[in-house]
Amino acid sequence: MNNLFADLPTDLPEELVEVLAENKHVRIERIVSTGHASPDDFWYDQDKTEWVVVLKGEAKLLFEGDDGPVHMRPGDYINIPAHRKHRVEWTKPDDPTIWLAVHYDD
Amino acid sequence: MNNLFADLPTDLPEELVEVLAENKHVRIERIVSTGHASPDDFWYDQDKTEWVVVLKGEAKLLFEGDDGPVHMRPGDYINIPAHRKHRVEWTKPDDPTIWLAVHYDD
Repeated sequence: MNNLFADLPTDLPEELVEVLAENKHVRIERIVSTGHASPDDFWYDQDKTEWVVVLKGEAKLLFEGDDGPVHMRPGDYINIPAHRKHRVEWTKPDDPTIWLAVHYDD
Repeated sequence: MNNLFADLPTDLPEELVEVLAENKHVRIERIVSTGHASPDDFWYDQDKTEWVVVLKGEAKLLFEGDDGPVHMRPGDYINIPAHRKHRVEWTKPDDPTIWLAVHYDD
């Protein structure tokens, strides 16, 4: 048994993505961000649908064409259709933001 | 956007299972238990693999053939292979235990 809130790195130069389970249809990831955001002008454009929840910390997620980002706090979840372009505008700078992401085929 | 920790029923005669996302390969559920356990002699025997995490509360999960249950606390997660028989022996009686379960095909 493992714990989503354990083994948090104290120094995190880049966002940390760990695959918790994976097969041909599904990939479950823990993502840890500490102030990280997507590079300027970068948009995720993914082949799989992504169901994602913020479990600790805070993040702002921007979808292409929207006026402003969605501010996600602990427990907030979104289902992102495949190829719906989005980017991480902001994550909380001082404490780790922990995401759980489930990428799955339609 | 929805929140995993919102809309908790105050009175919960039976375990509450809500499907958050579903397609032919994957089903993501929020499960809320308050003192609920599997019926005597009942074992889950599932066609899909189940990745499951306790996000709030506590639970004891027993796998067939094991000497005793696994005590799960917030953040603890387990990947349960298809047809690995298991049962919920106990959940915390006073507060809701919130599980997130991802059922997926191999």
